[in-house]
Parts: sequence; C-alpha cells; structure tokens
Amino acid sequence: MQELKDRIAKEGRVLPGHIIKVDGFLNHRIDTTLMSHIADEFGRLFNMDEVSVILTAEASGIALSAVVAQRFGKPMIFAKKAKSDNIEGGLYRSDIYSYTYKKKVTLLVAKDWLSADDKVLIIDDFMANGEAMRGLIDIVNAAGATLVGIGCAVEKGFQGGGDRLRAAGLNLKSLAIIESAEPGKIVFREDQ
Amino acid sequence: MQELKDRIAKEGRVLPGHIIKVDGFLNHRIDTTLMSHIADEFGRLFNMDEVSVILTAEASGIALSAVVAQRFGKPMIFAKKAKSDNIEGGLYRSDIYSYTYKKKVTLLVAKDWLSADDKVLIIDDFMANGEAMRGLIDIVNAAGATLVGIGCAVEKGFQGGGDRLRAAGLNLKSLAIIESAEPGKIVFREDQ
Repeated sequence: MQELKDRIAKEGRVLPGHIIKVDGFLNHRIDTTLMSHIADEFGRLFNMDEVSVILTAEASGIALSAVVAQRFGKPMIFAKKAKSDNIEGGLYRSDIYSYTYKKKVTLLVAKDWLSADDKVLIIDDFMANGEAMRGLIDIVNAAGATLVGIGCAVEKGFQGGGDRLRAAGLNLKSLAIIESAEPGKIVFREDQ
Repeated sequence: MQELKDRIAKEGRVLPGHIIKVDGFLNHRIDTTLMSHIADEFGRLFNMDEVSVILTAEASGIALSAVVAQRFGKPMIFAKKAKSDNIEGGLYRSDIYSYTYKKKVTLLVAKDWLSADDKVLIIDDFMANGEAMRGLIDIVNAAGATLVGIGCAVEKGFQGGGDRLRAAGLNLKSLAIIESAEPGKIVFREDQ
C-alpha cells in the first residue's frame, strides 16, 4: 500500500537494534484517516462478507482493528495481556514471548465471546517475529473457530515472522513489508 | 443515552465488590455499531470543530476513541501504561493508582505528539474513581494544551470520580451514570 509505505519512509525512525518507530501515526498518536484507508485496503484483500469477528491483541492493534471492524459492521475482540498469574477461568489463553518486554506474556480471550461458529479475521498494526500473531492463532484454534485471514499493516520482513506464517499456508496480507531498516534508509519488499 | 443504558441493563453483570462487567460490548468484545452511536452522541455533546486531538488511556479506551476520532476526522493519542521503571525521556507522565491491579501505574505520552496548541477531548469507556482520568488531565496540563471536555461512556456514579471532576468545573459528559449496582438490579442516574 503506497500511502502507508510513504508515511513509513517519511516519518518512521530507525533506532538501534532495527527498531522502527512509527508512533506518530500508527501506534501512539494515530492518524485515523490513514486507518480508514488501511481499512479500505483490507476490504479489497479479504472477503469481509465471510468474516464474523475481528480479533487483535492489546494495546497497539486495537485502534486499527476498531476502525476496520466499524467500517465493515463487525464486532471486534481484543485479547488481553495478563498482568499476573491470578487468572480467572473461562478463558482461552496462549503464552507468547514478548521481545519488547523480554518476558513471557499470556494472551487471554473470554470463552463467552469467541465460538466454533466464528469466522475470524486477525488484524494487527505491526508484526516482527510473529509471536503475538502465533498467540492469536492459538486462541482461534482453541475456540474451534475458522481463521479467514490475517491482515497486518507493517511487517518487519527481515525478522521472518510473516514468512513463517505464509509457509504454513495462512492467508496473511501485510500492507508494507520492510526488508531492511537502517537510519535514513528503509527498504520495502516489492508487492507480490 | 438510552441505547447504552439498555445494553448495560440487559447484558451487564454485577460481580462482588460492585464490579460491573460490560465486556460483551464495551471493553473486551466490542460492538462497533454501538461505538458509532456513542460517537454520534459525543458529536452532539461537544463542539468537535474546536477539538484538535482525542486522548485516551490504554487499553480499553482505545477502541471507542478510535471510532470517535475517525468519525470526526481527528487524530487520537493513547497514553501508554508503563510496564517498568525503565522509561525513556521526552515524555509527559502522570502516576495514578490502579484499583484494578492494586498498584501504581504511570501514564505516558510522548511530548512529540501533544503540544500547547492542542485542544483536547478526553474519551474513555469507563470511569470509577477517576484516577485514570486525573492522570490524563495531568498530562493535558503538563503539555500546556487546552482541555475542551471529557466524554465517558459509563460512569460509576457511586464511586464519586465523575462528581469530583464536575465540582472542579470540568466539562464532563457521561452517557450512562450508574448510581447503584447489585446483582440483577442496576440503577441509573436521571439525565440532567
């Protein structure tokens, strides 16, 4: 998606450790007009008629997912990140490793809100190693729901998470795949 | 807002300790059509023309804020909750007490994204004691920005947080104020 790539190229900042900051429009301050355009793009890439619910993980995926879900008249669910081991019952859970916080995090979705009848589109703002995505897929599987597809705004292609999901046959669409990131120079993968 | 009160009365669950769970439509699974109607209601209650940015706190305020911000063509910012004491510079910060997690939490907003020129509308899904709201107001003040108003979907009136803000002269509008909550019986404050 050219508009998104242009914004990343213009406003993204590359920090040591190949960290790409896009917090001016994607995941701290959020440009909701851009989110609308991203929603339109996902509407072209996925058959929204067969989607019953949008699933994401807290916190930074929520804004984009809310705009996408509202745009297509779908409910959304955000998986919560457990802050303690004191977790009540009735939950689907998946343990993932958070590279941001360098520790195990548990994703939780209440069983009340996701069922085997659901056709799930996972949406997230960012994918690096794909751990959060793996956790969300686990939860879809645990519910016995159908995974229609995965829509990701920005993928760090050089960390391999997205390619592993594609190799597993999942219907992943990322709107901007970053192949390499050095200060002043961000290179995108060519559209397939 | 009658539609919201009806949903709370029908689907809300009251747990011991006057905890009101509305996680089927407001803050875990999210009914984005209801969020649109709430956005329309905030559009009637606030002059959106004078708002430059919507501010909320992660995580449960993000979905509603994104729908409101997108509806009126505004950017939004969500204050992050610090997970560690290892916080970089360039941030507005406010320490609040989280009754949910029974510990101190620090709200953070990057100085890059909020300035003295901003006219801020704070939006949140839920207010009880008002600690998160106080933190967001602190951050608006620290930035030297103007607080246009505060829009809250559900206020637990019996915990007093909202009334303290009103007494301080702030332009707070809550769409459903709960005066008392017992299992099977939720009583709302009459509209003013």
